[in-house]
Amino acid sequence: MIVAANTVRFDSLSLDSGATLAPVEVAYETYGELNAAKSNAVLALHAFSGDAHAAGISHETGKPGWWDNMIGPGKAFDTNRYFVICSNVLGGCRGTTGPSSVDPRTGCPYGMSFPVITIGDMVRAQKMLVDWFAIERLLTVTGGSMGGMQALEWAVAHADRVVSAIPIASTTRHSAQQIAFNEVGRQAIMADPDWNGGDYYGKRPPARGLAVARMVGHITYMSDDSMHEKFGRRLRGKENFSYAFDVDFEVESYLRYRGSQFVNRFDANSYLYITKAMDYFDLTNGSGSLAAALEPAKARFLVISFSSDWLYPSYQSQEIVRALRSRNCDVAYVELESNYGHDSFLVDVAEQTNLVRGFLASTFEKLP
Amino acid sequence: MIVAANTVRFDSLSLDSGATLAPVEVAYETYGELNAAKSNAVLALHAFSGDAHAAGISHETGKPGWWDNMIGPGKAFDTNRYFVICSNVLGGCRGTTGPSSVDPRTGCPYGMSFPVITIGDMVRAQKMLVDWFAIERLLTVTGGSMGGMQALEWAVAHADRVVSAIPIASTTRHSAQQIAFNEVGRQAIMADPDWNGGDYYGKRPPARGLAVARMVGHITYMSDDSMHEKFGRRLRGKENFSYAFDVDFEVESYLRYRGSQFVNRFDANSYLYITKAMDYFDLTNGSGSLAAALEPAKARFLVISFSSDWLYPSYQSQEIVRALRSRNCDVAYVELESNYGHDSFLVDVAEQTNLVRGFLASTFEKLP
Repeated sequence: MIVAANTVRFDSLSLDSGATLAPVEVAYETYGELNAAKSNAVLALHAFSGDAHAAGISHETGKPGWWDNMIGPGKAFDTNRYFVICSNVLGGCRGTTGPSSVDPRTGCPYGMSFPVITIGDMVRAQKMLVDWFAIERLLTVTGGSMGGMQALEWAVAHADRVVSAIPIASTTRHSAQQIAFNEVGRQAIMADPDWNGGDYYGKRPPARGLAVARMVGHITYMSDDSMHEKFGRRLRGKENFSYAFDVDFEVESYLRYRGSQFVNRFDANSYLYITKAMDYFDLTNGSGSLAAALEPAKARFLVISFSSDWLYPSYQSQEIVRALRSRNCDVAYVELESNYGHDSFLVDVAEQTNLVRGFLASTFEKLP
Repeated sequence: MIVAANTVRFDSLSLDSGATLAPVEVAYETYGELNAAKSNAVLALHAFSGDAHAAGISHETGKPGWWDNMIGPGKAFDTNRYFVICSNVLGGCRGTTGPSSVDPRTGCPYGMSFPVITIGDMVRAQKMLVDWFAIERLLTVTGGSMGGMQALEWAVAHADRVVSAIPIASTTRHSAQQIAFNEVGRQAIMADPDWNGGDYYGKRPPARGLAVARMVGHITYMSDDSMHEKFGRRLRGKENFSYAFDVDFEVESYLRYRGSQFVNRFDANSYLYITKAMDYFDLTNGSGSLAAALEPAKARFLVISFSSDWLYPSYQSQEIVRALRSRNCDVAYVELESNYGHDSFLVDVAEQTNLVRGFLASTFEKLP
């Protein structure tokens, strides 16, 4: 598997808000080789806290990519056959321009002067990258959670550029509950005095607020069942309750650890901007109905959801499927049985691999 | 309906932790009249953020009690027939001794020097109150959520004093997920610099941390469906996105408001202590099985859960029912259809009223 990591700089990007961002850097990695016809390109789209490092071992962190069990030689996205591109989203903090980037007008990080961005803006930044590769059509656009939103946006906003789409554990628009969980995370960050109106670069970051936000996130990514299996009521390093406010339960220890570690790899302002983009996302905007919104789409679809995912429940995937079917689109849908909740698309990938492999192979074979 | 509100002071209370609390004040209200035989007493047990004001209009706040739609003349707990007692829990902040009470040894509020308490401790404080009323046996002990835990504890720990028990939307022990949500709330409070190790009385309370904790709570009390119905994706006072971090959606406005208001009626340290008591609660402690733990119980049981309650899911109520049935106990169980999630026991009470009324009447008629 050939891995390339790089950053491309574009002059400017017009945003849905009306603002213009200039310049825009996009960090990406690729795996496998682009064929001569440039017909084997897969665009993998990361979820909220992901980055461009989708597969292989990072030189920087020594860690596998977020979808390493799906991308690689012989894997679902077989890098012996396909050329996989993954870029960090606009507004992110892992190489692509975001609130922690330096605003060339001031020489200081944007902070909260960074413009509010949308899923559509993220996808337009990705399209510049795909254009830069001179790839006419993507064999597939795919991702879980927020990655699935981007895949849907690609299929509608840039329909001629997309042969197929695989949105996983995703939705066409956030529900009130999904917005609510994001809002709690934002409020936790903004309640931290160290957040300081977003102006904390070079100072102490809002680590406590970001940790609380991340803890809420982790609960929503797992299922009641998977938390029961992983932690139950087991105590952490003790046989009896502490009768104090130290860690008693394993699950407390896990959440505190994951919360406190998150600040090392994620920027609190990116948390605000990216969750806002998710909440704003509504594929039906202005069209009134999902079937109408999906009108421009020309892609084949494989839609996947997971039985225990209560954050992005199956009914949200089924809404996509019903709307596509009502337009007689080529769409397959599978609800996979899994205990892992929303995290299933990242961890419970055996059946997902079979589905994706077959769908991709048949899509590739049908190319003119 | 006769309403009485008062506070009783007891010399001391021995706690599960081994500590002793002295003195202990218990704030209570009563509704209806105790009959001559003292056989018509109902003990209503409040949930996490409740208080002794269960019914009628508060002289202090002008607000109805937390179970006003269940307690009153002709209501489920008919105050023309029954004498209803409700007291604020130990560790609370609405009249009963808790971390905001003055420690007589120091003349200052306890703060974090208040001993960690358990559901068993809360129930022992209630038992002192029932003894003070010279009530031999309670016709029923009842409550939703943490109130249901107390009802179960009563039925097991003071089996001779309980004729019947009605635990609603409750559990015999918190799951990892339930502990996790409580831990997030605690961490949000303790992350607020104004919390100051619990020493904030007379100073600025940790309002921002407490608000974030309350916001998380509110999400878990509602269902995906009820949030969809109540808020959907409606914008708050605007037709377009703000492209800023102000309130965009109704649901954000609701959560921010409820969070910010909570600090006016609830003490952040009580939040810590009461959630800890809930997390520690495990009716099976030391006995190994729920059926064995329920062995001492002599009460009739009516167990109620709600179809859309994902915080205290029906399977937790069904565990109680299975264990009681395995001992051939008198137990009725109903899962009520409701869209309101965990809040159902407070708001969607038509069917609950019928169930409780019939169960209470037959229990009362069977008294020797």
